[in-house]
Amino acid sequence: MSGKEQKLELAFTPLLFRHDALSAPYVVVLIDILRATTSICTAFAHGVEAMIPVASLEEARHYKEWGYIIAAEREGIKPDFADLGNSAFHFMKPKLRGKTIVYSTTNGTQAFSVVGYTIDVVIGAFVNLSTLTKWLIEDGRNIYLLCAGWKGNFNLEDTVFAGALAASLMQSSQIIIQSDAVMASIDLWNLAKNNLAEYLLKTEHSQRLKRLGLDDVIPYSLTFDTCPVVPVARNGMIRLATQTNHEHFYD
Amino acid sequence: MSGKEQKLELAFTPLLFRHDALSAPYVVVLIDILRATTSICTAFAHGVEAMIPVASLEEARHYKEWGYIIAAEREGIKPDFADLGNSAFHFMKPKLRGKTIVYSTTNGTQAFSVVGYTIDVVIGAFVNLSTLTKWLIEDGRNIYLLCAGWKGNFNLEDTVFAGALAASLMQSSQIIIQSDAVMASIDLWNLAKNNLAEYLLKTEHSQRLKRLGLDDVIPYSLTFDTCPVVPVARNGMIRLATQTNHEHFYD
Repeated sequence: MSGKEQKLELAFTPLLFRHDALSAPYVVVLIDILRATTSICTAFAHGVEAMIPVASLEEARHYKEWGYIIAAEREGIKPDFADLGNSAFHFMKPKLRGKTIVYSTTNGTQAFSVVGYTIDVVIGAFVNLSTLTKWLIEDGRNIYLLCAGWKGNFNLEDTVFAGALAASLMQSSQIIIQSDAVMASIDLWNLAKNNLAEYLLKTEHSQRLKRLGLDDVIPYSLTFDTCPVVPVARNGMIRLATQTNHEHFYD
Repeated sequence: MSGKEQKLELAFTPLLFRHDALSAPYVVVLIDILRATTSICTAFAHGVEAMIPVASLEEARHYKEWGYIIAAEREGIKPDFADLGNSAFHFMKPKLRGKTIVYSTTNGTQAFSVVGYTIDVVIGAFVNLSTLTKWLIEDGRNIYLLCAGWKGNFNLEDTVFAGALAASLMQSSQIIIQSDAVMASIDLWNLAKNNLAEYLLKTEHSQRLKRLGLDDVIPYSLTFDTCPVVPVARNGMIRLATQTNHEHFYD
């Protein structure tokens, strides 16, 4: 425990992310429940060594030429040249243990570019909620929740998870909330939590995945704590967080 | 009644406004409860003839030289050269009857610039909720709710009003909602509506106005239907809407 106050802020979409919203040092929590951050947690929980998030399919294609395993998706669909799509189920394969995967998605990985490379981005999803909460409180930095949204727009599933995480963090008395966005997310979480699947069934993205026949992963994406990992992106590479990763933030 | 379907969309802040979110023709509803849109409705309900929204204080100062009455505010404070501030109470004066007022505020009037001059912008607030609902349904165009927010950020009071208006519009079976933002706003409105003042007391902006000693206008801003008017901005000028204003949208 750092013993310090920790402020909490929330951007509903990358467009609303502001570098001056919180004083440094702060850590960003990237949220893309359907499906990137759920998939990243799943990959690390199943032994993947590292992931390289890339914004464009062109970059992903270059990495393919260099021999990397490529996971990619646009509008829910895997491009031909990719080895894996964007479903969490694709990242559970034993042959991926110890491997580095290059990953590009419609919304999730593009959010990294607004944050930049100098700020740690940890990966949040229902599947790692408790482990992430504990890690963030131990870490002690201010916390900026960043919802990937859908093509720049607000979406409910990411916002409801942001509220779940905010509510969970409030177990610690060092968490300070002065943000309307955080308050709204907690209220929406409280409305949704007793029947999460039904609440989120109405969302635009659930309906979109259903139309595409890709909604098989939704129940898994809404399960709690199946992946007790905290992946963190630092210098363009996602790895498992360790205590020593953030040691220098304590005086 | 137009008999057509009307789609409803919501941007939590001007940054999230997208010209392609709804098919034309659509009308924008500008929402800045504390305080611009409440003040504009109040001004028209008290006999003001027209208002000219301007984004910058420099523009407002030019109009001052040309002899106009100026209402302006930055961070809640009236600049020295302005005749009126931003409180709804300033617009209730009999001497303003029949006058044209130039108006510039921190958030409200700046939102006009993202919409542009070719789209009708109607003014929404709790004080004109019922009249506005009736007008929008009669009008028949798609409806884009635009919250002014606070310096580009999400705020709860504008969002809760957006939810109130969306819920009110749903009285009409021609209203179609497929937007996560609209759904979230309705959920927040349903949480807030039974004790609106208390719910909104926690917001950042209420706290800010309180610190500035400007919170006297909050109870008035949360009263329903005290101003049965629909002001509409068209070609850079706000006037009272009339039936003939939108007659050409009917075939």
